Amino acid sequence: MSGKLIGVGVGPGDPDLITLRGLKTIQKATVIAYPSTETGESFALNIVQGYLPENVQKIPIKIPMVESRFPGQLIYNTASDEIVTHLKSGQNVIVLCQGDPLFYGSFMYLHSRFAGKYPVEIIPGISSLNACAAVSQRPLCSRLESFSVIPAGMNEEHFRTKLENNEAFAIMKVGRHLARIKHLLNQNGMEERAVYVSHATLPNQKVLPLSKAPESAPYFSMILVPSKDEYVQFDT
Amino acid sequence: MSGKLIGVGVGPGDPDLITLRGLKTIQKATVIAYPSTETGESFALNIVQGYLPENVQKIPIKIPMVESRFPGQLIYNTASDEIVTHLKSGQNVIVLCQGDPLFYGSFMYLHSRFAGKYPVEIIPGISSLNACAAVSQRPLCSRLESFSVIPAGMNEEHFRTKLENNEAFAIMKVGRHLARIKHLLNQNGMEERAVYVSHATLPNQKVLPLSKAPESAPYFSMILVPSKDEYVQFDT
Repeated sequence: MSGKLIGVGVGPGDPDLITLRGLKTIQKATVIAYPSTETGESFALNIVQGYLPENVQKIPIKIPMVESRFPGQLIYNTASDEIVTHLKSGQNVIVLCQGDPLFYGSFMYLHSRFAGKYPVEIIPGISSLNACAAVSQRPLCSRLESFSVIPAGMNEEHFRTKLENNEAFAIMKVGRHLARIKHLLNQNGMEERAVYVSHATLPNQKVLPLSKAPESAPYFSMILVPSKDEYVQFDT
Repeated sequence: MSGKLIGVGVGPGDPDLITLRGLKTIQKATVIAYPSTETGESFALNIVQGYLPENVQKIPIKIPMVESRFPGQLIYNTASDEIVTHLKSGQNVIVLCQGDPLFYGSFMYLHSRFAGKYPVEIIPGISSLNACAAVSQRPLCSRLESFSVIPAGMNEEHFRTKLENNEAFAIMKVGRHLARIKHLLNQNGMEERAVYVSHATLPNQKVLPLSKAPESAPYFSMILVPSKDEYVQFDT
């Protein structure tokens, strides 16, 4: 009988933000796979380092960190081949996913290769979205309000349309787009209620009014724009 | 020294989907508050029943379940008064929140009463959004895609504008709006890729193509509409 591919959301950074189900799954793992830099550094792996059984077999998926590029098919094909060997031998393979596996996660590149062919299970994780809302204490949505998630790198015309047709936002992966996004929010009268968050739930976490955000924002930073109605000014 | 108000997201239903941090917090609780029906039934309380210390003091916040109505200010005022007594005596008060406290959660009605006046902490939880994506194995967003969350009860003209200006959606709290939403999605060529989910992560969970959704949907059901690019047909 084939093993199962299990995507586990390990949360945004604080190891205590993994779910019990994720923890139990990782503690029983014999093989784990995870995204890593080309030199083998892995944020997802670091989060759960303290929970891993000894002698767990590791499959780092070394992804070049180039923002604009579709992650190399070749890298995922190679990783999939290695994972398949384990599944065929009846072993489960746990894929560690920072945040939630299906929210801007690279897990979907594996998922699309395995769904329908091998048993797949997904254990959700605390996404950066919920983490940033929690640390900045900003409600995301309530009652009959809608809410949109926009990647900062979206083309500008498209981005403007989103701002004009929605009321509350999370702008993801701010990084080098910070100045441009600030300008766009300003033009739409939204800058004042916008909140900048980086490294949510980690010791170096920053929660600031957007006007006080550092000039150089890390790639994984976020801007939350609560709806006008929900915006309450207070210090966190 | 004053106690702290701590909102804890307990996840969508499966007790194993609470975070470790949420669990540790609940296990040390002396006073908990939670939304309940008028007869005292509480979904959030049920989820964590097995984790509660004996003799924990309970503050049910009895909220009339009327969809269209802004929850009674009076009810929250009364609950807040009771909570304040505990905070002033130096005790923390844990507020149990189904899903995530800040994602369509009633916690925000308490939060707005305490923020800036008493210490407040928020521990995020797995939202219904992440849970529904996981059980239906549908990626929410990737790369440069945006994603919108829309409550099914939103006024129809507004709803249409959302559909026309966004590509991927989660439609929340479907309930009695099911037939109308189906029709709207159909008009926008989105019905075929839409997925219906109810009771995610619970034993009676349902994941169905929207075309096969039951005629009478529970209030807390959801329709996921993945973007065209991400839609992959497979059985879950």
